Amino acid sequence: MRSDDLFTSLETIVGPGGILTSTADTAAYNLEHRGNFPGRALAVVRPRTTAEVSAVIKACAHARTPIIPQGGNTGLVGGSTPDDSGQEVVLSLERMRRIRQVNPLDNTITVESGCILQSVQEAATAHGRMFPLTLGSEGSATIGGNLSTNAGGDQVIRYGNTREQALGLEVVLADGSILNGLSPLRKDNSGYDLKHLFIGGEGTLGVITAATLKLYPLLRQQATAWIAVQDARQAVALLARLRDVLGDRITAFEIMARATVDLVLRHFPDLQEPLPGSRPWILLVDVSDTSVRYPLQEEFQLALAESMEQGLILDAAVASSERQSQTMWQIRASIPEAQRKEGPSLKHDISVPIPRIADFIDATVPKMSAIVPGIQCITFGHVGDGNLHFNQSMPPGMAKESFLAQADAIHDLVHETAAHMQGSISAEHGIGRQKQEIFMHYKDPVAISAMYRIKAALDPENLFNPGRLLPLRNS
Amino acid sequence: MRSDDLFTSLETIVGPGGILTSTADTAAYNLEHRGNFPGRALAVVRPRTTAEVSAVIKACAHARTPIIPQGGNTGLVGGSTPDDSGQEVVLSLERMRRIRQVNPLDNTITVESGCILQSVQEAATAHGRMFPLTLGSEGSATIGGNLSTNAGGDQVIRYGNTREQALGLEVVLADGSILNGLSPLRKDNSGYDLKHLFIGGEGTLGVITAATLKLYPLLRQQATAWIAVQDARQAVALLARLRDVLGDRITAFEIMARATVDLVLRHFPDLQEPLPGSRPWILLVDVSDTSVRYPLQEEFQLALAESMEQGLILDAAVASSERQSQTMWQIRASIPEAQRKEGPSLKHDISVPIPRIADFIDATVPKMSAIVPGIQCITFGHVGDGNLHFNQSMPPGMAKESFLAQADAIHDLVHETAAHMQGSISAEHGIGRQKQEIFMHYKDPVAISAMYRIKAALDPENLFNPGRLLPLRNS
Repeated sequence: MRSDDLFTSLETIVGPGGILTSTADTAAYNLEHRGNFPGRALAVVRPRTTAEVSAVIKACAHARTPIIPQGGNTGLVGGSTPDDSGQEVVLSLERMRRIRQVNPLDNTITVESGCILQSVQEAATAHGRMFPLTLGSEGSATIGGNLSTNAGGDQVIRYGNTREQALGLEVVLADGSILNGLSPLRKDNSGYDLKHLFIGGEGTLGVITAATLKLYPLLRQQATAWIAVQDARQAVALLARLRDVLGDRITAFEIMARATVDLVLRHFPDLQEPLPGSRPWILLVDVSDTSVRYPLQEEFQLALAESMEQGLILDAAVASSERQSQTMWQIRASIPEAQRKEGPSLKHDISVPIPRIADFIDATVPKMSAIVPGIQCITFGHVGDGNLHFNQSMPPGMAKESFLAQADAIHDLVHETAAHMQGSISAEHGIGRQKQEIFMHYKDPVAISAMYRIKAALDPENLFNPGRLLPLRNS
Repeated sequence: MRSDDLFTSLETIVGPGGILTSTADTAAYNLEHRGNFPGRALAVVRPRTTAEVSAVIKACAHARTPIIPQGGNTGLVGGSTPDDSGQEVVLSLERMRRIRQVNPLDNTITVESGCILQSVQEAATAHGRMFPLTLGSEGSATIGGNLSTNAGGDQVIRYGNTREQALGLEVVLADGSILNGLSPLRKDNSGYDLKHLFIGGEGTLGVITAATLKLYPLLRQQATAWIAVQDARQAVALLARLRDVLGDRITAFEIMARATVDLVLRHFPDLQEPLPGSRPWILLVDVSDTSVRYPLQEEFQLALAESMEQGLILDAAVASSERQSQTMWQIRASIPEAQRKEGPSLKHDISVPIPRIADFIDATVPKMSAIVPGIQCITFGHVGDGNLHFNQSMPPGMAKESFLAQADAIHDLVHETAAHMQGSISAEHGIGRQKQEIFMHYKDPVAISAMYRIKAALDPENLFNPGRLLPLRNS
């Protein structure tokens, strides 16, 4: 089919406002949020209904035109933008943003995949419930993208990843058929649980059009502490200790290296650190409860006081107001922006088994300084998930080219060490196009072979996101 | 290959004690626990290591001999026993029962799939942690079987099904290759999450040989209540109300119809009902907490007292000792045995959306009495999961043949109604051989088609559990 014919078909399906082709109109869809992975789409198609998605897929399949599903385009690994061939159609779900149903009695919400994450959170709150997924880009990321990449975020320690929030999915497959799995059931052992293939499948197996998600009771109490520890080993020990008493009341357990905090304070001089003394590592811990009758603040304070007596922590400040808590979190939230202001940086998103976090840091940081003397290790992450955003900023005064010349050596060190410790080279962000080489290098070949067979089984013509996640094979 | 050659190969792999062939030795493997699905295995092979499992699978694949993976053989739907052809090899995991590692700091345990569920629970407790899966057959069911069938049980409302406990799996595939996914990671977005295919896959896609599972903090407080309500609608409303305050502290929320309680009391006269008055519906509710400082008993009592004032419940008794709590649970646990003593029965394992539970009962019970006057509806189940074990016992004095002649009409009514309400025809027990007809009738054909494609992709020769879950197709 000529692309003119495809345009005509698509326009008939989605209406004149549903297809964008000019350079100006498609610009925002052609490259990632951070400006990476610039490409050029044949067209951007924006269906309004599941039936339209199905028809679009059939038309593209007929024309043998690849489809790049796209949500809020907040991904970081090149999984949601077109390549520069001008041959790929971006299928944007942005016009499918209906909240189909909120059912407080069932603790579920059913939403279309183009819904902004923040809208899902707000709809839950409006019905006296809570949707726990929360991340930096929640104002523009869509729930379909969150599902397709199995997004993590700050509260994974308590509620799990996006995967754990999904009860059922509606998905359009490569032949245009609609998999109607929008179930609110908590128990259903009737056949393979297909939804888990599409969750974290990065749009390579089907297009998620709607989801039924879990809701939770509102939290009625919350406390935040800024805690200083000697090293990551103490952080892990403190987590075990707090969990023993507080159980699932721990809703966040973040770590930041001194250099990370200092970087933020340098670029945002209005922010003030809650504790004096420039301690080597800082933890930011949230605890919460649904009941007002539990002495949350007291138990938290007591556990921290005991931990301090026993030398497990150096110091701690519990926020005495919501404003104080917000200030603490603002330091954490400002890290990416501070890194941007600081200049060139290298970024990693690894996970290791929780008891190995300290080993991982010990095994990498000294070697990094040997590779790039003066390198700034901007380490931070989610201790409860074993997930470090293990970033490095350029030493002050270094030439950008000299720094970036060492990028591969640094990347190799980080990924090699993580893999050696049974870790993952992509904890949260996925593979996309950016991490394919290390994915193919470190992933179990038996797993990769099974993934290719599943891809071929569900998308034999390689219609969806071809060459993303799984590299194209010569065959 | 002749079967003699296969025997020789298998014996070389697993040693003389590892292969059973005589009628006496194989009897226990040839039919289900409850005596259903009698079959006849060509042999029962009992490997001791993952490498042996791999070699056994290669030998059977070479001989084109089907493999029926078997754990504790406590399944209820004919998914783990051989057919009567005498051509299928039972692969029993019973000699693979090592606990490979318990890691309290990481809150994980790594066990081989032949481990008895109770041993997993005990190993966790010995390390100051808790493994939450609990079900009637926990003394003989294996964790591999629990995973393969995604077993549910009594605490799903709080901890989820077996699926939710699995962090990573080791699986031997149909070509004998070993998928090494034994990861303790809480976050790993590197490719499709393959483990979810094998969990609930009923042994049709691979043989699970080991698993890394989540552990939880110990519970330090528990309270149990026996609560009388007017109907299932009140039960659902009470659940929502309690959850609003107690959140995830609700660890069980079971329902029993009056006829169910009466049946147990009739067959076990030593048991005594905690509340007088023969109220129409009974709830058995457990709440618990990791902290001793939360006023669990008081808050639970208060919430029940308020619910009673507002007419939401009829009456309630909170157990004042662990012994009282055990007595309450003994009534619940004695239902299957009471049904056996009562005589012929029909059983169903359905789920519906939680808000539809009462509708489901209203839509079926009166019609059942019309089909079989005097039928005893032995309804019980897990309200928090929308899962009813919707069983019926024969009316006293009826001829067995007359009762069973109506079985299909009753089954159709139950499954038709559940499906109509967006429910599942198999909530906990799976499909196996028993539920294939209704599975094929009620399941979304798009889902079934995808399942066949995945089966063909991972097990192209149909080596594993052929004809179970997915019926054989003529092709």
